Amino acid sequence: MVVERLETYLNLKYKPENTDLICVYSIEPAKGVTLETVARKVASEAGLGTWTELKNIDETTFKKFSPKIFEISKKNNIVKIAFPENLFEARNIPQVLSSIAGNIFSMREIKTIKLLDIEFPDSFVKHYYGPHYGVPGIRRLMRIPHRPLLSCVIKPKVGLTIKEYAKLAEEAWRGGADLVGDDENLTSLEGNDFDERIRAVLDVKRRVERETGEVKEYLPNITGSYNQMVSRAKMVISHGGRFVLVDAFTIGWSGLQALRELDLNIVIHAHKAGHGVFTKANNHGISMLVVSKICRLIGVDELQVGGIGNKETTEIMLLGEKIEDTLISEKIFKHKLQEDWMGLAPVMAVCSGAIHPQSVSPLIHSMGRDIVIQAGGGIHGHPSGTFAGAKAMRDAIEAEMNGIDVKEAAKNSKELSEAIKKWSK
Amino acid sequence: MVVERLETYLNLKYKPENTDLICVYSIEPAKGVTLETVARKVASEAGLGTWTELKNIDETTFKKFSPKIFEISKKNNIVKIAFPENLFEARNIPQVLSSIAGNIFSMREIKTIKLLDIEFPDSFVKHYYGPHYGVPGIRRLMRIPHRPLLSCVIKPKVGLTIKEYAKLAEEAWRGGADLVGDDENLTSLEGNDFDERIRAVLDVKRRVERETGEVKEYLPNITGSYNQMVSRAKMVISHGGRFVLVDAFTIGWSGLQALRELDLNIVIHAHKAGHGVFTKANNHGISMLVVSKICRLIGVDELQVGGIGNKETTEIMLLGEKIEDTLISEKIFKHKLQEDWMGLAPVMAVCSGAIHPQSVSPLIHSMGRDIVIQAGGGIHGHPSGTFAGAKAMRDAIEAEMNGIDVKEAAKNSKELSEAIKKWSK
Repeated sequence: MVVERLETYLNLKYKPENTDLICVYSIEPAKGVTLETVARKVASEAGLGTWTELKNIDETTFKKFSPKIFEISKKNNIVKIAFPENLFEARNIPQVLSSIAGNIFSMREIKTIKLLDIEFPDSFVKHYYGPHYGVPGIRRLMRIPHRPLLSCVIKPKVGLTIKEYAKLAEEAWRGGADLVGDDENLTSLEGNDFDERIRAVLDVKRRVERETGEVKEYLPNITGSYNQMVSRAKMVISHGGRFVLVDAFTIGWSGLQALRELDLNIVIHAHKAGHGVFTKANNHGISMLVVSKICRLIGVDELQVGGIGNKETTEIMLLGEKIEDTLISEKIFKHKLQEDWMGLAPVMAVCSGAIHPQSVSPLIHSMGRDIVIQAGGGIHGHPSGTFAGAKAMRDAIEAEMNGIDVKEAAKNSKELSEAIKKWSK
Repeated sequence: MVVERLETYLNLKYKPENTDLICVYSIEPAKGVTLETVARKVASEAGLGTWTELKNIDETTFKKFSPKIFEISKKNNIVKIAFPENLFEARNIPQVLSSIAGNIFSMREIKTIKLLDIEFPDSFVKHYYGPHYGVPGIRRLMRIPHRPLLSCVIKPKVGLTIKEYAKLAEEAWRGGADLVGDDENLTSLEGNDFDERIRAVLDVKRRVERETGEVKEYLPNITGSYNQMVSRAKMVISHGGRFVLVDAFTIGWSGLQALRELDLNIVIHAHKAGHGVFTKANNHGISMLVVSKICRLIGVDELQVGGIGNKETTEIMLLGEKIEDTLISEKIFKHKLQEDWMGLAPVMAVCSGAIHPQSVSPLIHSMGRDIVIQAGGGIHGHPSGTFAGAKAMRDAIEAEMNGIDVKEAAKNSKELSEAIKKWSK
């Protein structure tokens, strides 16, 4: 019989092994409870423990499955725990989260808890698919080797007829957008049936491709019940589409992982709607960094990361190795863990939210060129309409790539000039 | 062209129609922002809005898709919004959440926001499956017409060999447990392969059923990537199992909804691991009440709701109509919405967490008899072991059903007496 000695979890001399899964938590204990006590309870609950002693396990087994608390900092409430890999099933993200972000989030002894970072063991990473395309694959597919991609979300999100919708897509593509996408809540709605929309928009896509000589792609939102998603993805493919959009955080991990594992040979664009439910509070929930790492592991190709200066952008930038070197914010990420991605392709970051032509230069300067710059209102809200709005954005991107200041470039672009005038206010 | 007049969303005289989906939010605005402004931005973003004016939509369409803020209370930061049903796709929970709990959770103008309650329109409810079994179906299947069911979670959660595991299951069933279940993190692990475990435990189940004459069921944890879950569910069925357990909140809605829609004729038991990520903070996230309503809509049969006096239990109790009459706490639920379930079966509440024989009477008194009483440590931690632990729990339930005080009953039950002695400390 093992009477659970909470003391056995704490080992500040422990050096995590590469078979450990490591988590960094920020924990505020409830009143009258010490950080050590809480850390031990977390290690126990996320491991094999329960609330009373156990008759059914021997010391050897207990040790084999016991997490180790190897760092604890009362100054900033940081707790680092190394979990042995035998606590987890590889390629089962829900199971992993049920352990490391499960019951411990409801403990009475804890006031607030946030899972800040995670590092997966190699033996674990190698079981995952990772992105089918990622940055290099998307660049090849789009035949855009260097510049950021321009994406246009059709707005308003809902309420347009399919004819109106297809017309806006056409204007956006003709103006210079590479991608045109549905927004988070447009799946199949009254007056905008999914199948009809896909057929109409993909017809337009082929026409604009022929006429412009550029690759144009459409991101249809297939979000739904898993089987619904799959049948919609297949419908998209059968009509020549090569991208799909999913609301990664409201569909959830089971559906996202299964969709990737089907290996349909499509680009998976992850919309971030709903992430704020668990990422927004500084002291409680799961960080955007953690869920982004999980997205790379599972294998989304594009992930929305918000606008410039957003908290989630700062976190996500750390995922791209090239960018990481220049941008690690010690203040935010002194607790950042390393991750060996074992060759999994990097995810392309999609920057969105209140973006207009003058956002382009600062975005590229902080995020690099391997991004999708995505605008909705910043294109359709252009004084001369959607075509002009897309052209202004594309002109701003081309200017930046040629080292020309956006205001200088505006001298040769009426559309850009109008956009600057409007959004400078 | 419609320049979005935020004013149009606010209509305190509006009476919600039965085609509206209604949400109750608690919102703390960011510094310097008023609650009205924030409420209007929420209505806009969760509707068809974007951050700049739109050229592509007329006044009629705008009105048709516009949510209405019909109540706003600065005293307690409550905002009630009625969303027209044409903003939603029926039977697509992720789409609904992307709208009502999507981007609005990341708005700069908002400091904290919690979705407290939700009411679905009838036209919406009728598209969902609801529980295949629910309370009446489970009672029929188990042949237990009146008393609460007794469930035993095998502990430790991980680390046991399959032989040890099956032995504990046998002891629990023989002692009087009706259900024996895996815990949230036991799927298929090193030393405890899913298929082997299911075969071994279901063999024991059949033997104990023959010998005791009672119906015994096993809850195997099929949590995983969607296709993995389905193949595991089918494996369980092919070996005679009739229940499965899923970690509803880490698998996510897309997988949960699709699993129910497969209509495999099994009882779906929803483990609540991870709910605290979004339910725990009082001021930010989504309430247990909301996700429980969604679980009933989708159709889980059993839902874990925690121990007695937990916040989530209080919320969930309000879901069972019979219990509701006696237990609505005006203090907590003065903002509670009604819901017409249109005949969808009620979900059976599973009470768990630090439960031992003396928890039985207060649990039944507050939750009613239509519950599963689930113990782990409170059974295996019994001084005389698992069989005795299960017997003590079952004796406590039978005593309560016969109106006998548990201490009185302990005079005729050594196991109950030992348990009371141990957990009275």
